[in-house]
Amino acid sequence: MNREQMIAKVKAEMPERRWLHTEGVMETAVVLANRFGVDPARAELAAILHDVAKYWPTDRMADMIRDKGLPAELLAYDKELWHAPVGAWVAEHEYGVADPEVLGAIRYHTSGRRGMTKLEKVVCLADYMEPGREFPGVDRIRELSLRSLDEALLAGFDSTMSFLIEKGKRIFPLTLEARNSLLENNR
Amino acid sequence: MNREQMIAKVKAEMPERRWLHTEGVMETAVVLANRFGVDPARAELAAILHDVAKYWPTDRMADMIRDKGLPAELLAYDKELWHAPVGAWVAEHEYGVADPEVLGAIRYHTSGRRGMTKLEKVVCLADYMEPGREFPGVDRIRELSLRSLDEALLAGFDSTMSFLIEKGKRIFPLTLEARNSLLENNR
Repeated sequence: MNREQMIAKVKAEMPERRWLHTEGVMETAVVLANRFGVDPARAELAAILHDVAKYWPTDRMADMIRDKGLPAELLAYDKELWHAPVGAWVAEHEYGVADPEVLGAIRYHTSGRRGMTKLEKVVCLADYMEPGREFPGVDRIRELSLRSLDEALLAGFDSTMSFLIEKGKRIFPLTLEARNSLLENNR
Repeated sequence: MNREQMIAKVKAEMPERRWLHTEGVMETAVVLANRFGVDPARAELAAILHDVAKYWPTDRMADMIRDKGLPAELLAYDKELWHAPVGAWVAEHEYGVADPEVLGAIRYHTSGRRGMTKLEKVVCLADYMEPGREFPGVDRIRELSLRSLDEALLAGFDSTMSFLIEKGKRIFPLTLEARNSLLENNR
């Protein structure tokens, strides 16, 4: 499948506004990849596919998590987290993506994880700060991204966690670990 | 060792102001215990001993964590967390406390944990809201404590986590799990 075929297929999986978000992530991921020494082609590929399962019905995602042996603890957490590992599975098996780093960037783009690769950080950060995003603190994330991948991503995780605390919602342990891990590297 | 002997011995382990804090936790833990159906004598006993190791030199705490097989992952986290499990060991071996629930309330009074007992919650909450405490949100915790042990404690963990995010410090995973667990019970 070439780039254009892939884009057409992914686009068909989601509403127009989500595709616009995906385009924003693609552009931003390429910019960040060039800035921080990551292969921009791999960053773009992960960005194209990162939300491929975002609009799947919940049941279909849950079935796939169970049937394909994806991390079952996800089922006890917010459904917003499910599309990322499901998307990585789909990227591998329905789009023929074999590059484990690209698959990791899709798999962890929502939760993060301890010891993220640079490519994972770039895609996760692009998802936070693409031009269509508007939330308190997003401008500070964009500003930080001009000089530090880790500091910008940390500010992203901080905003997610503060939002979940404010809303009385649970925080996924992997996100805490991702944040702790960034702070350990910066010490 | 009777209550008075124990109090005298613990008091000698810390500066005057910390003993005043301990007295505040004792009084508050007894009030909360009566309010929420916990044995007030056990709550007071845990409160007396909860900060017994708080003023130990860091090296002495670290040695004990290593030598006595206490959870070694603590050593990678904030020293503020160390005195709780060390205190539980001291309570057991130097003060003759045999009650595992009381020891648990000392052990988890700082971090919390998933599935806390009512006694653990009472002591942890008393430590947050004793009359000497002053921090943003403490009045709301006191207000919530009039009607719900879980909601008040949740507000306490929220304040800790928000503070650590604000300060750019790591959050101990057990605290996240404690908060997630409270939210699961309240659903």
